[in-house]
Amino acid sequence: MSRGILFVLSGPSGVGKGTVCSALRGNSPELVYSVSATTRSPRDGEQEGVNYFFKSREQFLHMIETDALLEHAEYVGNFYGTPRDFVEKTLSEGKDIILEIEVQGAIKVREKFAEGVFIFLMPPSLNELKQRIVGRGTETQATIDHRLSVAAEEMNLLHHYDYAVVNDEIEHACSRISAIITAEHCKRERFLGELFQQFETASVADNVLKR
Amino acid sequence: MSRGILFVLSGPSGVGKGTVCSALRGNSPELVYSVSATTRSPRDGEQEGVNYFFKSREQFLHMIETDALLEHAEYVGNFYGTPRDFVEKTLSEGKDIILEIEVQGAIKVREKFAEGVFIFLMPPSLNELKQRIVGRGTETQATIDHRLSVAAEEMNLLHHYDYAVVNDEIEHACSRISAIITAEHCKRERFLGELFQQFETASVADNVLKR
Repeated sequence: MSRGILFVLSGPSGVGKGTVCSALRGNSPELVYSVSATTRSPRDGEQEGVNYFFKSREQFLHMIETDALLEHAEYVGNFYGTPRDFVEKTLSEGKDIILEIEVQGAIKVREKFAEGVFIFLMPPSLNELKQRIVGRGTETQATIDHRLSVAAEEMNLLHHYDYAVVNDEIEHACSRISAIITAEHCKRERFLGELFQQFETASVADNVLKR
Repeated sequence: MSRGILFVLSGPSGVGKGTVCSALRGNSPELVYSVSATTRSPRDGEQEGVNYFFKSREQFLHMIETDALLEHAEYVGNFYGTPRDFVEKTLSEGKDIILEIEVQGAIKVREKFAEGVFIFLMPPSLNELKQRIVGRGTETQATIDHRLSVAAEEMNLLHHYDYAVVNDEIEHACSRISAIITAEHCKRERFLGELFQQFETASVADNVLKR
C-alpha cells in the first residue's frame, strides 16, 4: 500500500481558509482532516479525538519537549498544536490528510515535514483582501490597520508554498485543490516506487514482457 | 497575460496515447494540439496547418539545420517533426498546447523545452501492456517479440517525466490529465510572476493594503 500525502492549506488572514476547508470536507469525504491538540477546555458537544485532542498544560508542554507536535502556538492563554503521530498514522494507512493552518504554523510544519504539499490560498487581488478585512465591520481602525499589515506580510510568504489557489469562488477553489490532490498522486516519484515493486514482484520486467 | 504551458503526453507503444489524446480533445476544447511537420504527401481531406504542415524534403532539412524543430524522426522514408514556432506562438498567446509523441521524441523535446510538463501514460500493469501488444493479433511472433522488448525499454524512461498517468480507463486517464493541467496552473512559480505584476501595478503592496 502506498503512503498517503500530507496537504497543508494556508493563506493570509481573512482569505477564507475555514470556509474553503469546510466545503472541501463536503466534496472530498476520503480526505482525513488533521485534529489539533489544545489545552483549552472542551465546549459542549466537542469530542476528544474528533474536534480536538484535549490535553493538560503539563501534557502539552511534554509534547513540545518530545517533538510530538509539528507546530504549536499560544492564543489567549491556551496552547494549540498539530500532533505528529495522528498525521503519521493516517499517512501510513495510505490515507491523505489535510491540515488547515495559519501561515506561520505552515512554515514550521514545512521544516519538519518537507514532503508535504503546501497550498497557499490567495485573495483574487490585494484590494479584494483589503475589502474582506475592512468589510468585517465591527473592528476599530487600529485593529483593521494591524490586520492589514499582518496580511501584507503573510502574502509575502507565498514563496514557501508549492501551489497557490485563488479563492475567487469557493467551488472553484475547492475544485482546484481537488485537482492538486489528484495531480500529486500522479507525480512520477510516487510511481517509481510502485513500479519498482511491480518489477520486483515480477522478478524482472523483461521476463514478464517476453513471456 | 500569462504564458501558456506545454504539456507532452507520451508513453510506451501500445499504451493508448492516441485514444486518450482524442478523448482529451473532446473534453478540453481550450487546449491547442501541436501540429507536426512532415515530408509525406497530404492524403484526401488533410489540411495544411490543421493535420500537418506539409514540407518538401529540402524545407524539412532546412528546419533541422536551423533548429526550427523541437524533435524529428524518420518513418518509412518520411520525416516527421514538431515545429518550434507553432509551440512558441501558442504559448505566447497564453494558450496551453499538448503534444502527443513517442518516448524518444519526448526526451528530445525535454532537452530543448525543459519548462514543459511531461506526462507518461502507463499501462495498468506490465502484464496488461503485454496483453495489449500481443492482443493486436495479426503480427508475427518476431514482430511481437520486438514490440515487447521495445515497450520494456520504454517503460524504463519513466524517470524522465514529471507525472505518470495510468490508462486503466480512458475517462479516468483524461480526468487525471485535466487535473494535472489545472494543478500546473496553480504552481507557485506561475503566481509569483503575476503577484509581482500586481505589486508593481499597485506600486507597493503596503500602500494598497494600508490605504
